Amino acid sequence: MTPSTQTAYDELLRRTREHATLQSCAAVLGWDQQTYLPRGGAAFRGDQLALLAALAHDRATDPRLGDLLGACEADVAALADDFAPANLRELRHGYDRAVKLPKRLVEELARATSDAHEAWTAARRDDDFAAFRPHLETIVALKREEAAAVGFAGEAYDALLDEYEPGATAAGVAAVFADLTRELVPLIRAALDSGKRPTPGLLERDYPIDRQRWFAESAAAAIGFDFTRGRLDTTAHPFCSGIGPGDCRLTTRYNPRAFSEAFFGVLHEAGHGLYEQNLPAERFGQPAGGSCSLGVHESQSRLWENQVGRSGNFWAAFFPRLRQAFPGTLDGVTPDDFLFAVSEVKPSFVRVEADEATYNLHVALRLELERALVGGDLAVADLPGAWNDRFAALFGLTVPSDREGCLQDIHWSFGGFGYFPTYTLGNLYAAQLMAAAAAALPDLDRDTRRGDFAGLRGWLTANVHAHGRRYRAAELCERATGHPLDAAEFVAYLREKLARFYGVC
Amino acid sequence: MTPSTQTAYDELLRRTREHATLQSCAAVLGWDQQTYLPRGGAAFRGDQLALLAALAHDRATDPRLGDLLGACEADVAALADDFAPANLRELRHGYDRAVKLPKRLVEELARATSDAHEAWTAARRDDDFAAFRPHLETIVALKREEAAAVGFAGEAYDALLDEYEPGATAAGVAAVFADLTRELVPLIRAALDSGKRPTPGLLERDYPIDRQRWFAESAAAAIGFDFTRGRLDTTAHPFCSGIGPGDCRLTTRYNPRAFSEAFFGVLHEAGHGLYEQNLPAERFGQPAGGSCSLGVHESQSRLWENQVGRSGNFWAAFFPRLRQAFPGTLDGVTPDDFLFAVSEVKPSFVRVEADEATYNLHVALRLELERALVGGDLAVADLPGAWNDRFAALFGLTVPSDREGCLQDIHWSFGGFGYFPTYTLGNLYAAQLMAAAAAALPDLDRDTRRGDFAGLRGWLTANVHAHGRRYRAAELCERATGHPLDAAEFVAYLREKLARFYGVC
Repeated sequence: MTPSTQTAYDELLRRTREHATLQSCAAVLGWDQQTYLPRGGAAFRGDQLALLAALAHDRATDPRLGDLLGACEADVAALADDFAPANLRELRHGYDRAVKLPKRLVEELARATSDAHEAWTAARRDDDFAAFRPHLETIVALKREEAAAVGFAGEAYDALLDEYEPGATAAGVAAVFADLTRELVPLIRAALDSGKRPTPGLLERDYPIDRQRWFAESAAAAIGFDFTRGRLDTTAHPFCSGIGPGDCRLTTRYNPRAFSEAFFGVLHEAGHGLYEQNLPAERFGQPAGGSCSLGVHESQSRLWENQVGRSGNFWAAFFPRLRQAFPGTLDGVTPDDFLFAVSEVKPSFVRVEADEATYNLHVALRLELERALVGGDLAVADLPGAWNDRFAALFGLTVPSDREGCLQDIHWSFGGFGYFPTYTLGNLYAAQLMAAAAAALPDLDRDTRRGDFAGLRGWLTANVHAHGRRYRAAELCERATGHPLDAAEFVAYLREKLARFYGVC
Repeated sequence: MTPSTQTAYDELLRRTREHATLQSCAAVLGWDQQTYLPRGGAAFRGDQLALLAALAHDRATDPRLGDLLGACEADVAALADDFAPANLRELRHGYDRAVKLPKRLVEELARATSDAHEAWTAARRDDDFAAFRPHLETIVALKREEAAAVGFAGEAYDALLDEYEPGATAAGVAAVFADLTRELVPLIRAALDSGKRPTPGLLERDYPIDRQRWFAESAAAAIGFDFTRGRLDTTAHPFCSGIGPGDCRLTTRYNPRAFSEAFFGVLHEAGHGLYEQNLPAERFGQPAGGSCSLGVHESQSRLWENQVGRSGNFWAAFFPRLRQAFPGTLDGVTPDDFLFAVSEVKPSFVRVEADEATYNLHVALRLELERALVGGDLAVADLPGAWNDRFAALFGLTVPSDREGCLQDIHWSFGGFGYFPTYTLGNLYAAQLMAAAAAALPDLDRDTRRGDFAGLRGWLTANVHAHGRRYRAAELCERATGHPLDAAEFVAYLREKLARFYGVC
């Protein structure tokens, strides 16, 4: 072993950890901004976050990083760390991407997205796409520039998708989505045509907020979220923030006349939280200590929210507790009535309100349009029309307004092209992981019916969490489930559920 | 005007603001650490704060700052800013102090105080001074070294006091404290000997926490604390954190069987908060936008907590509201009974539980011992004996244990020599400012009896808050009150109060 290689590697990891620590400070400020920040402090919070972002960016593009990477790559075998190849692969990937982006482009994007955020908020409120259009045109142009600067083998969109789902390609994702859509559209149609419906209003009864909080916290703790290393607070737009070792924050919002939003929201965020809490803490700041991709992260939230949380086995354990938590509210309701209510398929215009099945059509639509925008095949001016046409084709519904159409999501205003697909990738990974876990854990059903999740959680930690970013998502999936990602397990899962409640298959 | 001087000044202020913004990020993390941080995140929070402190220290000692200061000082008259002389005076003061401290000393102090904090926590718990002694010896030695590095005209302690109360000297403070002690000791003795006592247990009745919170928040809002630019949370050791423009956080702790702690604690912190909220926000980061000294800061908290909050005029407005907030709890209690209870003089061993009068004897004792330790006239080994002797002389009580004696405070474990005197300086400034405000505001009594504090708050803002650190504390005091700090107004205030309840004078 040449000492100089190891020395370079040690310095590299020290710098990487410092960079991550700086970003974790920004994460605390970001969490606070969404939970407790007084309204009068909003402008100054922007100054604080901008300063931390600038400091972090300087570190991420410091030429010294490139030198250290080069020194390590020259003799990877000399490094006394099993994770060195993965760490170097991912650090190189991030460094090259960062230095390929001209500072001017980074600044223009920051300014354009900051302006666009305000413009989007107003445009959605006023249902006024024309007011948002110039902002979106600027952002699409800048994102195309970003893709060109980063470079790509297939199409420009690949370079953007790569930021959220490293290694994935537009063509690969689109092929899986095409399979999925082909199955989903007739399945959803059949469910709707069955004429069956759950008990109306079951989930909109009286669910007092303090009891919702208690019940959701107890469920999050039951699936294994460690409240000595995390917490749950209230916010307007729920999220999970894995701040750093021993500190992971979940958020939710409560509506006293709606059970599902907070409860499944908390299960969802707690799924993200379990991933964060079970990453190898001693590797904090290294790729080996970070999560694999947004898609894999989302698989952890979706697995607990839907695969587990909307299952009969889960409610076998939790329905009696639910009745106790909300005395009288569910008199005469059977566990099956309740499960049907939380499994209802109901096409709607707004993604964030969508059910497990139709959600993925929302995502498929956005992938198509994003690819076309970034590829230059769709002009921003034509976006509303394209949106409404595709929506009609997928959902059989006429979009009543841009507010409920192409203006509904925040993502494009922050330049998040490539982000949407990870939501459905998460659903697919979740189903595939759950099938693999079920095959590996003979007692899974029994344990779940007892409210015991240690086995499942342990399997996920061993097969997903503990690997950090050692493998790219595609490899992680193959290692954990035995085959590449496809739509089969998710479709099978949905088919079984819909057969049960709608009698279709 | 030479453009280069103005350019240097602009860069200086830009850097100063950036430095303050970085420290404000640490302030958010510090607030979070004391309020919401999950226990498992404590170690990592230390890493985050250490990184931010290191970044801030690098900036504070950047030689570029010295160059810019020199360029500005060469032609102050060229600068288009009334506050330039004050800004340059204070920035020079801070920069010189920072660069005079060897990096080694700063690091040793950081390590020693970090170790000492844990050792002190355990030593206090176990009433074991011997376990804390070597840590305190190290810290005293390092603080003496710090004083020597910083330099001083009178005695070593001056260099330490100067960090918290710039411009003050040990001899000057000690002279005022000697006057105060000479008056206080017989006054307190006479009150105790009068045999008069407030109604026992009045403040230890049933005060439900949610109502305490509501009542304390409404009082803080009534005196002018702006909750759109601040908030109130719960913590173990209450504090006020002025994070930055529009964001000031108060904290308190509630005991359902003790009214005073949370209520007067909130008034106290809200007094600090009013100072922070009324500093010139557009000057954030400059000395001109910062507070004057710890003593002046404490004067703002003590003024609202005691001069206002423990006055008959205040309770003329608030006693009816208090009865409503705690229905039944105060049946048959008169406003005068209540005022006597919150004004009781009762010597005790622990400073943080002390009343308005005896509190200052606690501080006087600490000043004497700190001076002796730093001056080399008292060995750490002899501290418990010296403490107990002086305590007996001042309070006429025998200290039962070091836990209730020289181990009670956290300050020495973090090296805060010079901090204690600012508490009593705050009490004295508060009385002197209140007397000046009363002379300037003919309707002050009437307004206070109506719960209208706009006049007093406006006077404080005009005479204290708006000046930031334009003047040193001594000059601010003379400008606001017409004469230098002395103990006269505080003694007169206390004499009047004790005459009323104890019949002594």
